[in-house]
Amino acid sequence: MRILGIDCGSRFTGYGLIDSDGTRHRLVEAGVIETRPSDPLAERIFQVGARLREIIAEHRPEEAAIEDTFISINARSALKLTHVRGAAFFICAEAGVPVAEYPPAQVKLALAGSGRAEKEQVQRMTRVLLGLPEPISSLDASDAVAVAICHATRRPVSATR
Amino acid sequence: MRILGIDCGSRFTGYGLIDSDGTRHRLVEAGVIETRPSDPLAERIFQVGARLREIIAEHRPEEAAIEDTFISINARSALKLTHVRGAAFFICAEAGVPVAEYPPAQVKLALAGSGRAEKEQVQRMTRVLLGLPEPISSLDASDAVAVAICHATRRPVSATR
Repeated sequence: MRILGIDCGSRFTGYGLIDSDGTRHRLVEAGVIETRPSDPLAERIFQVGARLREIIAEHRPEEAAIEDTFISINARSALKLTHVRGAAFFICAEAGVPVAEYPPAQVKLALAGSGRAEKEQVQRMTRVLLGLPEPISSLDASDAVAVAICHATRRPVSATR
Repeated sequence: MRILGIDCGSRFTGYGLIDSDGTRHRLVEAGVIETRPSDPLAERIFQVGARLREIIAEHRPEEAAIEDTFISINARSALKLTHVRGAAFFICAEAGVPVAEYPPAQVKLALAGSGRAEKEQVQRMTRVLLGLPEPISSLDASDAVAVAICHATRRPVSATR
């Protein structure tokens, strides 16, 4: 099963593709889509969506997983991020790839055994679980891979809603 | 100049197309895209985006206008609505149609002369400004037409950002 993990941000959107049988996971590719804050919002949303479309066309994931948005203190960037998520959902649905959503605590729990694990701990476990010689350098890409692994291990929990 | 107005909602998304020279406006088409709350979020976002894509392909608007999101008391539906907006931005950018955003108060001011005008007042003015025999029956469609008219009369104010 090939899974695409997506970690949307108002400026950086991480993505990570893994092949997994539910217990063993292999990294296919991970990276970051960066947009410029000086570009119009519509343009930035389009850049992320268009790049995700290319990634899906190239790697043909069977399912996708994305972190839940939650309204944080910084409502302004939460809103930007949610626009980007909207485009990500659109692109996945357009390609017929079902998307599951996971709250951040569930991703942490699946990866590091605690819903309150630190970001660095999740990054370390991502490296361990994928058997990589060194951690994925970008935290956004690593977070995207983490949500993909979470989905691989917990698939039936929260299918597309 | 043909303008597409969009009024995104978590369940109903209104759209309205007008031809305008900045002072005289003619209604081309208006309607509502409805999605079912029981469908997965990704599916609903896709339905709205795919329909907007058809509407743009059919009517070829030169510019689009959309109401600003603001975080309301009901953060949950504000988030859903923002996902839909993300898809709307994506579709417009994909089609090369620039999108302007207007806060609700600015739309009210442009249509009814007051930023605090009631919804019904805006609906009435939409009818008057378009010279329609009766008001546009759906409030969502009427709101979408209102933001298109606002854009027609105030174009240079807030170009895509």
